Parts: sequence; structure tokens; C-alpha cells
Amino acid sequence: MTYCVAMRLADGLVFASDSRTNAGFDQISTFRKMHVFEQPGERELVILSAGNLATSQSVVSLLEKRAGSEVPNVFSTVSMFETAEIVGKTIREVIHRDNPEGKINHVDFSCSLILGGQIRGEEARLFNIYPEGNFIEATRETPYFQIGESKYGKPILDRVVNYQSSLDRAYQCALISFDSTMKSNLSVGMPLDVAIYRNNELKPCFTDRVDEHNDYFQQLRQQWHQGIQELVTGLQPPVIR
Amino acid sequence: MTYCVAMRLADGLVFASDSRTNAGFDQISTFRKMHVFEQPGERELVILSAGNLATSQSVVSLLEKRAGSEVPNVFSTVSMFETAEIVGKTIREVIHRDNPEGKINHVDFSCSLILGGQIRGEEARLFNIYPEGNFIEATRETPYFQIGESKYGKPILDRVVNYQSSLDRAYQCALISFDSTMKSNLSVGMPLDVAIYRNNELKPCFTDRVDEHNDYFQQLRQQWHQGIQELVTGLQPPVIR
Repeated sequence: MTYCVAMRLADGLVFASDSRTNAGFDQISTFRKMHVFEQPGERELVILSAGNLATSQSVVSLLEKRAGSEVPNVFSTVSMFETAEIVGKTIREVIHRDNPEGKINHVDFSCSLILGGQIRGEEARLFNIYPEGNFIEATRETPYFQIGESKYGKPILDRVVNYQSSLDRAYQCALISFDSTMKSNLSVGMPLDVAIYRNNELKPCFTDRVDEHNDYFQQLRQQWHQGIQELVTGLQPPVIR
Repeated sequence: MTYCVAMRLADGLVFASDSRTNAGFDQISTFRKMHVFEQPGERELVILSAGNLATSQSVVSLLEKRAGSEVPNVFSTVSMFETAEIVGKTIREVIHRDNPEGKINHVDFSCSLILGGQIRGEEARLFNIYPEGNFIEATRETPYFQIGESKYGKPILDRVVNYQSSLDRAYQCALISFDSTMKSNLSVGMPLDVAIYRNNELKPCFTDRVDEHNDYFQQLRQQWHQGIQELVTGLQPPVIR
């Protein structure tokens, strides 16, 4: 399993992904699910991936191999929309390569991606790209996307994050969302990769890798856990007649 | 969809269920998913149901029809374990009646039940009964069960509820858990049914039906939402270099 979340906010973009992959409970590995394509001054692109690892790795490898080549690629596009089209097309290409007639139906070849970033000349944008290669874009009303194990960590995002949230608060909420998810699903695990892009900088994101020993994360998860318990205690319980 | 939760605590049992059923988005109804079997002084049994409504209604109807008859039934048992066996057997009977050879595989006939209560002579017990008719029992380490749409509302339970929680606090946490779930899944909906059983009373549970206009619930959901936002604001955000 996997959990990734990305937000498009007034000040920029926030990305976070876990790094655990598993094929059954006894085949667990650590793989980075965040991939960055950079052209300082021109574009900054971040891709998060969930689903079949063979598919998502091939998609990223093909995007990397073709970047800067003659064919349309992630460095030749003039808009994020066009970039999302190329990424979606590459998903279809890989799934077709591995399962050409759609005949193998006992294996799930699908992968979901989140693509966010900015290309000079337009504002920062964020897309959720489906296994079929089509995609939707984040808006002010719905400023975030999740892929993978999304449910445990959704309520905190819905209660706290909105388009006007600051980047550091959004990052903090993403960490709380991961904490709730990792408590409930063993197949989502640390270290976490984080990338934060400030609008119009067109330079490499602030990035961080948060592992078990990260002081801030340890402190946050402990304070949050204690804070929730105090919040419950501070509210009047219902009357049981 | 459905969401039900039940807890076995030091002081007694807490049950809560939503009442929305749906077959597609445009076929929505309200059905009670909590069923009570009472013999004051002898036993108090509560069943919560999720899954195929035709199956769970038939199971409950058969349990009611047979209660007090000559065949082994929910009023003739001398332990909760034996009662869980009868309920599990009835699930298998109904699924076999409706899909005798297991041939119809495009319809999900399964249902999951939670059974809790107390029979004179033993302590209160709580069981999670699977569609196959087998079951597990709650313990001090794992004092609650959820069926249906369980993920959105699980983190709050894990953070706050334990075997020593008081009945009113556990009820309060169940309501918060439902609030988080209903915000995220349209197919879980009010009114909620609540039943609370105090150990060794062997008399009808305290019950309540919580609808949209319930003052306490309105106040709780508002205070919780605001409290979460204040909790986030009160914690130090991470430093983005």
C-alpha cells in the first residue's frame, strides 16, 4: 500500500509520500514514491505515485529518459495541463506494454499519480492522474488530492486545510494525517518524503525526509495524541439517563 | 454502506449504528441496523448489522421468529458464545437459502454482524460475526469492533477509547467517530441509533436516536471541529528552510 497527499494552496504546493511497498505481509521494501523534474527558472515538477510499483517505476523511467529529447516530454511542455497529458499517456503506454490485450486480469497493473508544479508563464497547478491516463485538477474548493490509503488521514485534512492555509500549517497537517494513517495501516510506513514549493520561485522545492528519529515529528505526534485526549476530556459528555 | 461500532468496556457495552442504506446513489432509504432481544432479569442482547440488507433482515427475522420456540434460539442459550454460534449459523442458513450453490457471484449476499450483551450467570461479552458465520470476541486489549465504513472514524477511537473508558466518554467518542465518517462518506447517514448497557443490570439498555436536530450532537460536532482547529494552531508548525 501507499499513502500520498498533495495540496495546492494560495502560497504554493505541499507534497508528502510514504516509502513502504509490499507484496504480501512478508515482502516489504522501501521505495521512494516522490520524483522531481527540475529546470531552474523554467519549471519545477513533482510526481507522487501509488499502485503497481513496476508500472509507476516504468512511467517515471520513461519520463526521465525522454526528458529533453526530440519527442514531446516533461521539459518541452508549455503548460502543466500538457504535462499531465504526457504523464497520462505514458501510464497508458506502460500498462499496454505489460498487458497488451488486457488479458491478464489476476494482476492489477494500475497506478495512480499526483502531478504538481509550475511552468514559467502560468501559475502552479496540481493534477490527480488516474490509471486510465485521464486526470482532474485541484481547485480552490478542493485544494488537495490523496492517493493510496486515503481514508484514515482524511478527516484531519478536511477539518483544517483549506486554500488559504499557510504552507507550514499544511505541512504540519500532512504529518498528522500520516501519523493517523500509519497507526491504522501497517503497509504505510516511514520514512516520509516531503516537498514544498513556493509559488513563482521556479527553483528546487524545499525537501525533507522524515524518519522515525525526526525530532519534530516525534514531538508533533506526541503532542497531537495528548491534545486529542485533552480535547475529549474538555468537552461535556452526553447524559445517559 | 453502513457504519456501526460497539465497545466492551469495564463498565458495560456501548453500541451505535447509522441508518442509511443505499443501492446506488439514487436509491437511498432509512433502515434501523440495531436490533434488541430482551428478557429482563435473564438477558439483554443487541445486534448491529452491515452488508446485504436482505440477508441481515432475514437473519434478524428468523432470530425473532424462533425466539422462545422449541429449537435452540437466542432466548434458550446459556452463554453469549452459544448465542453467537446460533447467530452465525443463521447467517449461513440465509446466504445458503438465497444462493444455494454459491452460483450467483455478481451479487454480494454477505452481511457482518456485531453481537453484544449479557446473559445471567456470565459477564457481558461482545462478538464480531463474519459473513461465514464464524466470529471473534472483544478483549481488554481490543475492546471495540467496527463494521461497514470503518476507516474514517477509527483514529479517534484508537487515540481515546480503551477498556477503562467510562460509558459516557465512549458514547461521546462514538459520536465524534460518526461525525468524521459522515463528513467523508455520503452513504453513512443519520439518524443514529445508540444503546448503552451497564454491566449486570440485565434490563433494557439506555437507548437514544440521534438525528440532525439533536442539540447535544450539534454542539459536540461544532466544539470538536473548532477544538481540532485550535489544537493545530496551538502546536508549533515545522520549519521550512
